[in-house]
Amino acid sequence: MQKPSIPKGTRDFSPEEMAKRNYIFNTIKETFLLYGFSQIETPALENLSTLMGKYGDEGDKLLFKVLNSGDFLKNATDEQLLERNCPRLTNALCEKGLRYDLTVPFARYVVQHRNELQFPFKRYQIQPVWRADRPQKGRYREFYQCDADVVGSDSLLNEVELISLIDTVFKKFGVRIVIKLNNRKILSGIAEVIGAPDKIIDITVAIDKIDKIGIENVNAELAEKGISQEAIETLRPLLTMSGTNSEKLDTLRSLLASSEIGLKGIEELEFVIAHVGAIGIHSTLELDVSLARGLNYYTGSILEVKACDVQIGSITGGGRYDNLTGVFGMDGVSGVGISFGADRIFDVLNTLNLYPADAITTTKVMFCNFGDSESTHCLSLIKQLRESGISAEIYPDSAKMKKQISFADTKNIPYVAIVGESEIAEGKIALKHLATGVQQKLTIDELIAELKK
Amino acid sequence: MQKPSIPKGTRDFSPEEMAKRNYIFNTIKETFLLYGFSQIETPALENLSTLMGKYGDEGDKLLFKVLNSGDFLKNATDEQLLERNCPRLTNALCEKGLRYDLTVPFARYVVQHRNELQFPFKRYQIQPVWRADRPQKGRYREFYQCDADVVGSDSLLNEVELISLIDTVFKKFGVRIVIKLNNRKILSGIAEVIGAPDKIIDITVAIDKIDKIGIENVNAELAEKGISQEAIETLRPLLTMSGTNSEKLDTLRSLLASSEIGLKGIEELEFVIAHVGAIGIHSTLELDVSLARGLNYYTGSILEVKACDVQIGSITGGGRYDNLTGVFGMDGVSGVGISFGADRIFDVLNTLNLYPADAITTTKVMFCNFGDSESTHCLSLIKQLRESGISAEIYPDSAKMKKQISFADTKNIPYVAIVGESEIAEGKIALKHLATGVQQKLTIDELIAELKK
Repeated sequence: MQKPSIPKGTRDFSPEEMAKRNYIFNTIKETFLLYGFSQIETPALENLSTLMGKYGDEGDKLLFKVLNSGDFLKNATDEQLLERNCPRLTNALCEKGLRYDLTVPFARYVVQHRNELQFPFKRYQIQPVWRADRPQKGRYREFYQCDADVVGSDSLLNEVELISLIDTVFKKFGVRIVIKLNNRKILSGIAEVIGAPDKIIDITVAIDKIDKIGIENVNAELAEKGISQEAIETLRPLLTMSGTNSEKLDTLRSLLASSEIGLKGIEELEFVIAHVGAIGIHSTLELDVSLARGLNYYTGSILEVKACDVQIGSITGGGRYDNLTGVFGMDGVSGVGISFGADRIFDVLNTLNLYPADAITTTKVMFCNFGDSESTHCLSLIKQLRESGISAEIYPDSAKMKKQISFADTKNIPYVAIVGESEIAEGKIALKHLATGVQQKLTIDELIAELKK
Repeated sequence: MQKPSIPKGTRDFSPEEMAKRNYIFNTIKETFLLYGFSQIETPALENLSTLMGKYGDEGDKLLFKVLNSGDFLKNATDEQLLERNCPRLTNALCEKGLRYDLTVPFARYVVQHRNELQFPFKRYQIQPVWRADRPQKGRYREFYQCDADVVGSDSLLNEVELISLIDTVFKKFGVRIVIKLNNRKILSGIAEVIGAPDKIIDITVAIDKIDKIGIENVNAELAEKGISQEAIETLRPLLTMSGTNSEKLDTLRSLLASSEIGLKGIEELEFVIAHVGAIGIHSTLELDVSLARGLNYYTGSILEVKACDVQIGSITGGGRYDNLTGVFGMDGVSGVGISFGADRIFDVLNTLNLYPADAITTTKVMFCNFGDSESTHCLSLIKQLRESGISAEIYPDSAKMKKQISFADTKNIPYVAIVGESEIAEGKIALKHLATGVQQKLTIDELIAELKK
């Protein structure tokens, strides 16, 4: 018989991994709630008509399609079958697919339930998504996304709140972060000012490299990309920009003086930076004009979070969009959202070993099993512990003591309780702390008090 | 443009439904942890080789199959395509499918990770499953299962613990239940005694009807099914059996005296009933010999939970199996498990209106927005509330007061905070309780104390 396995790019999560992941998801969830976001869930299976065409041609290929039930060939002619045009045949064979992200299903949700919703609508959603990407280190075919969005409000207070929310989450994790902030309107302004709207990606890529390769190499690269010497000179203040956010805003204000959209972007950045400053956050908020983010539906603020103490890509990102629901026929819904990268946060917390001890212990105490009459007695004690909120279990078989204790140890259970004939006679429980070997005899009330510490 | 929709048999869950579902799942999870169960997760996508042949021919048809990526026709010849034998072609077109339950993936997990696991292994798992069933009221194509199992131990203490766990969960919910208990060995014993092992289903179906149609009609039905008059007479004490569990055990003991397996079943039932009695539970535990449960992998204890105050099918079920992992080449792993029916529990709690108020409120207080300078002040107050664990939000736009308050009301937010110029000058917050209309002016410390009540 073949050894059982799972599809490549998918994962099983062990109890220890789940405890750590639950710590991450629960921390994020509890912060979402603190900020007034409500949870929704959408089905894993969406109609392909909802998903296709929303992620570009490449995205269409990366969607997992689900074969129709029953006679799945009934919509395909013999000619179509023999033609073997797979993308075209897919439409005949499949009506449903697995969601690719949480954004398109959310847009679909908003439009479908528009009459039941109160706007502004603040929702969060934590669910797996699927992509038929080539699996590689850190890239999976099935992974969780963890999104919060506010739709139906163009107030920049929403940006301020989301930045504060991000700050709160990483403060709880104990991870030092920089929140990088930019605005698509700044990028549009730059393109306008240098008269090269199509070169905006080359420019942001180049700005991003300046620390590594220096301004002259960056300028050489820009020239190579076909940007005029005049434009390069115009850009010089942008490339050498440094200092505080307000100094950067000053530089931008003079550079983009002639661009209406650029000035609008500056005004938005100023609002967000000033209000975040007024409430005070723990992390660094850094205006970074090299931040572009790939997703082309962003139209205003964009942000990205980097961990200070671990070399890893962005661990959270987001931005404002003006017309998310337009593809489903509902225009004028502005929104802003963020997405926590749960898998990368998991890696960061593992690297820095930042899990609190009680997040990864499961059972607090295991009772050893010395046979039927002792274990019946233990079950009553265990019942009292559980009623006090203490997780407890009994080893189900009266195996050798050594085996039972090593079982508890491997399962990361910190205490074992030993209740034999003599303890029963005394009305006590012998409690052993496995890490130190310290053992004490306690009454049930003392035991509850000790384990609640 | 077409109104967006979701595939039939799937559901969107609104914030209110999610709050209720979270209450259910969190209550079950926290009880699983209290009893020493650890969570695992397995991927939604499994290899079809893992899933096929595990649920009978009908189950194979009901599996959702995922089309291979890229050139999905490459393993199919022209002849095969034109033959249009869908079930056979599926193997060529699809390697993966969506999990159908949590039991087969769990068995696969145990075998695949056998060298990393400590036995007995107590796991719980709460994830969606997919079935291409015809959708109908209360039956979905995508729904959550919620399972706990102990594998690698044949101790009946595991049954006792699971019954106690079920009792704890429904006590927390405030739902009165009867836990019906039987043992497959009793059913085998009955079949042995009357010499008709193939009639065991007809017999349990008949026993089940006795309250409704009376013993003479049941006997007529049994005769119709081809059961001999002698066997019917032998069965009579079983059909008229009543009284306490221990009286029922006495009846069984005399009826099954000649059946070794029957007596073993009685012994197991006695152990479980006696130990559950010794620790004491809140619910009724009722020996019910008409309980058969469809799943043919059960070999020992079987149980089912009925709600006392709502007419609905079984809301939890489970049992013991001797060879769950045998299909994956690992024999001799006995286990026992239960599964909570989350969708039906949701219906029961809705019908009885048993959600605690704090399970369905999300945000505790919404601050009204009177413009930029007031809202900046409010953000600092909100920050202090959140640091005290109180969920708070600000209406993002300075809309009309009436609109803002009606927004809070519709969102089930119990309090609004009104902080205008005069409140800022006084250093106070006007707090309005929406249900009663009562309004009071408080300092931030008083506000925190009030909302923490």
